[in-house]
Amino acid sequence: MAVDPLQPEALPATLAGTRPKGEQLRAVLEQLIALLGPGALLPSERMLAARYELARMTVRKELDRLVAEGAAYRVHGRGTFVADQRIVYVNPLTSFTQEIRAKGMTPGATVRSQAVLAADDGLAARLERSPGTPVVRIERVRTANGEPIALEWAHLPSDDFPGLERMRLADRSLLELLRERFGVAPAKAAQRVSAVALTAEEAGLLGTGEGRPAFFFRRTTRRASGRVIEYTRSLYRGDRYEIEMRQETS
Amino acid sequence: MAVDPLQPEALPATLAGTRPKGEQLRAVLEQLIALLGPGALLPSERMLAARYELARMTVRKELDRLVAEGAAYRVHGRGTFVADQRIVYVNPLTSFTQEIRAKGMTPGATVRSQAVLAADDGLAARLERSPGTPVVRIERVRTANGEPIALEWAHLPSDDFPGLERMRLADRSLLELLRERFGVAPAKAAQRVSAVALTAEEAGLLGTGEGRPAFFFRRTTRRASGRVIEYTRSLYRGDRYEIEMRQETS
Repeated sequence: MAVDPLQPEALPATLAGTRPKGEQLRAVLEQLIALLGPGALLPSERMLAARYELARMTVRKELDRLVAEGAAYRVHGRGTFVADQRIVYVNPLTSFTQEIRAKGMTPGATVRSQAVLAADDGLAARLERSPGTPVVRIERVRTANGEPIALEWAHLPSDDFPGLERMRLADRSLLELLRERFGVAPAKAAQRVSAVALTAEEAGLLGTGEGRPAFFFRRTTRRASGRVIEYTRSLYRGDRYEIEMRQETS
Repeated sequence: MAVDPLQPEALPATLAGTRPKGEQLRAVLEQLIALLGPGALLPSERMLAARYELARMTVRKELDRLVAEGAAYRVHGRGTFVADQRIVYVNPLTSFTQEIRAKGMTPGATVRSQAVLAADDGLAARLERSPGTPVVRIERVRTANGEPIALEWAHLPSDDFPGLERMRLADRSLLELLRERFGVAPAKAAQRVSAVALTAEEAGLLGTGEGRPAFFFRRTTRRASGRVIEYTRSLYRGDRYEIEMRQETS
């Protein structure tokens, strides 16, 4: 990439539009981000303020916004850099492993716990089983190219998947394993998604900061017959993930 | 509601399951939240720690998690309360006004700005028009029962909607207005959703705190012909909104 953002010629000479200056600066920065790509250094607050005759506060506000949206990140004492593009999530029936592979990255998983427990009322209701039914609970950290992206807590009725609590789930797809070992494939999925702040513990496991935004998914997948396969909660880093939704009138 | 959470009889006597104590406490608290409903006071950290013989840190961690997920909120010096249920968002073709009405609430909108501007390269590309094309930009705060829920920045090609910059958009649906005045209805929508942290300015407009989590939507809606109707960015409070996604194999 021949463009050096610190060379003023890479930037428009002036802000001349009819929109507020802050918004024009934002558009300039967004174009620069698209042009430079992940890891590139953005021009400094001081340099942008001088070039466009803006108050430092105005420049800082727009840089803050890019950081808050996850388009850029700051390194103390070094400046503001273009963030990696987010991984785009489209279909709740696609496994994490498939999604990450489709993006040309290497999926991974670290198992934090894998055990059978008795379902309490809430979990039993979600799995559409009786309270006390044995459930395999699998807690994993999911990675893409070795970087932690998501925390996942899967719950599956033990009677339907005997021995699952002893099967190897490091660096492999749970859905693939269910298909290969039990001949079960998901046909329907429903999920709720919230925007949440990470607790200190969650942030530590995901290699990011306490209070940072994340998606919190609660997903139920079912067989074609309607029988529940799994109820899974997961937390996805907001700076590494985004969701795509499409809709047409029928 | 006859249940007083401060009466110990409203709670299970002991934590007796096989799951870690913290998780069992979480399940108890989730059931209590569902039972008590929005605005109810939850038992204190001290009381929960004493009743279940847990370390205060364990109790605090689970209460922190409920607050981080938006299921509860704290009032300094008064305690932890059950949060309002989130509004569930399903379909990008449904207008904010329709959604809020469907929930039995009163939708509202405050117009912060409404003007024609010349599209820069990025906006022109999103609207599939030439750079410099005149665009009506409408910035609104959206409310439900008077409470700010979302900030919205809509962009529509001015040539397609002459005079739109002067039409009244306070407390009414933009999509309804487009249908009534211009005979235009959306047939397709595509959107990207990120989980972001609110800047101080955004949080101020939404009546919440800086750094709190929010959904950031970028939506393009089109006519049946494929022609772009609008490109809209919006920020929805994470503590008031959640997304529902459903999928079936075809």
